[in-house]
Amino acid sequence: MDRKIAVIGGGSWATALVKILCNNLPKVFWYMRNEAAVGHLLKYRHNLNYLQSVEFDLEKVEISTDLIQIIEQAEIVIIATPSAFLVELFKDIPEHLFDDKIVFSAVKGIIPEYNAIPARFIHKTFGTPYEKIGIISGPCHAEEVALERLSYLTIACQSDSIAEELAEIMACRYIKTTTSDDLFGTELSAVLKNVYSIASGICSGLGYGDNFQAVLIANAIQEIENFIDEVSPIHRDVKSSAYLGDLLVTAYSKFSRNRSFGFMIGKGYSVKTAQMEMDMIAEGYYATKSIIEINKKFQVEMPIVEAVYNIIYQKISPVIEMRILSDKLS
Amino acid sequence: MDRKIAVIGGGSWATALVKILCNNLPKVFWYMRNEAAVGHLLKYRHNLNYLQSVEFDLEKVEISTDLIQIIEQAEIVIIATPSAFLVELFKDIPEHLFDDKIVFSAVKGIIPEYNAIPARFIHKTFGTPYEKIGIISGPCHAEEVALERLSYLTIACQSDSIAEELAEIMACRYIKTTTSDDLFGTELSAVLKNVYSIASGICSGLGYGDNFQAVLIANAIQEIENFIDEVSPIHRDVKSSAYLGDLLVTAYSKFSRNRSFGFMIGKGYSVKTAQMEMDMIAEGYYATKSIIEINKKFQVEMPIVEAVYNIIYQKISPVIEMRILSDKLS
Repeated sequence: MDRKIAVIGGGSWATALVKILCNNLPKVFWYMRNEAAVGHLLKYRHNLNYLQSVEFDLEKVEISTDLIQIIEQAEIVIIATPSAFLVELFKDIPEHLFDDKIVFSAVKGIIPEYNAIPARFIHKTFGTPYEKIGIISGPCHAEEVALERLSYLTIACQSDSIAEELAEIMACRYIKTTTSDDLFGTELSAVLKNVYSIASGICSGLGYGDNFQAVLIANAIQEIENFIDEVSPIHRDVKSSAYLGDLLVTAYSKFSRNRSFGFMIGKGYSVKTAQMEMDMIAEGYYATKSIIEINKKFQVEMPIVEAVYNIIYQKISPVIEMRILSDKLS
Repeated sequence: MDRKIAVIGGGSWATALVKILCNNLPKVFWYMRNEAAVGHLLKYRHNLNYLQSVEFDLEKVEISTDLIQIIEQAEIVIIATPSAFLVELFKDIPEHLFDDKIVFSAVKGIIPEYNAIPARFIHKTFGTPYEKIGIISGPCHAEEVALERLSYLTIACQSDSIAEELAEIMACRYIKTTTSDDLFGTELSAVLKNVYSIASGICSGLGYGDNFQAVLIANAIQEIENFIDEVSPIHRDVKSSAYLGDLLVTAYSKFSRNRSFGFMIGKGYSVKTAQMEMDMIAEGYYATKSIIEINKKFQVEMPIVEAVYNIIYQKISPVIEMRILSDKLS
């Protein structure tokens, strides 16, 4: 295994991915924007801001703030930045930079400017054919990768051989990998789960208990199935880890940022205050609006997504909105 | 609504059911075995041992330690005792006691003596035809009913009209009800979830994290589907609340006794010590063995159930068994 792989992003998920890749590859190329973080990493061998317990072997990691130089060296580029930064990050890249490259998204979000999943953005912006675009999906919190707790990744790509190659590269003592050909479904499900995670947090903040939570999540996976089967009608089983597992880990885990955001909303914080308090914007915030936009075309019944939209964009009281929602669940 | 309904059992779930029934019925008949508990309830208006915060209106509750007298007065009998006590409890009942009665099981367990779900036991022991047997299923922890947190119950019966009648009787401000015709699947799923809850507890006790848990539960619902589709092949969607929701509330909730039992096993307690520590036997303990027995006939692949069986009956080390299991999950 001597594929040249670049990871784009300096957050916790990017950091976890570099850690995983270092197990089987002699060298990993790593772009992060923050110069201080690069300096810190080169001096202290860990990321300044995320997963600080993870120590990197500097002989294996080539790290730089020069995006183009990092991408030029790679055959496979894994993008792991927040979805909201993608357009800005890639706005000035040279025309043929991505020619012949395989591009994986580990973004878990939607591009708010285009209401598009990352695969579509990658295809349109870099000219990468869909067969050379893939998704790295959970269920996987970066924090548990740092702790080397056994986790499963799903590598989805329409090309079996590409999916299998990356799955083999990423598998290690604490990571098991499976492959899938469901590029669009996997990505849409990964986006949607953040919305349901906000819903779960809102309900928790309002005082709904475990009994209700279970009903909410059972209804959520049905909403996911209805939506992705409509948008991308291929055969899939949403009870697989990449869909249901990914939903569970996000909706039930204390590590989930979307859930925390929802919890604050349920407790009565305004959206602005909750975002300030978290010092970041939860992916599900953008996803909610984009899914509502995308669904104007598909018209799938999505009462949970609509409830979250009404609460965080239309400023409807969470108490009232969730009471209305509770009558639509079963 | 003036149906005469009896609840059989003095535990937390029986107590919660009586509380729910008191909302819409003028009178509820309640059997419990423990004389001191009956005396306490008549004096202090709450159950001595369970859900002590729930206060009963004694004009609405007719409570007695006389099983036959309570059943004689009822048109619908709801059984809510631990499954391990059923055979003993009903061993001396008069021959025609249950003639013309509708019998619901809220047992959530398997009858260890017969490896039989309660519906089958009711049919065989009382002579009740299957069309007059029903199941009350969650996702629903009794503790949250006591707190009047919104919960959903599934009322399953092959007779639509019976299911709908009980669903209407039980619905109230904090309880929503849905109906189902899947008597066997609902009950088997309710039994199986306790086994997966033990598995979830074991993994948690061993130090596996949220990422793994999500994969475990996603695989568990697939095992449930494979098993009940084989045993009772009718159309059902296991992503519904009665199956997936019930699994989630048991596997993820801190109220779950099966999960606590598994957690202790994962931490290194012996089965005996864990049972003594809990002062009760988790339903999933019996269920594990019975499902293994039942599955000898059906031969469904059930790696998670087998792992739990190997750990709690065959005394295989949880560390080793779960490592082997982890290779079978995806």
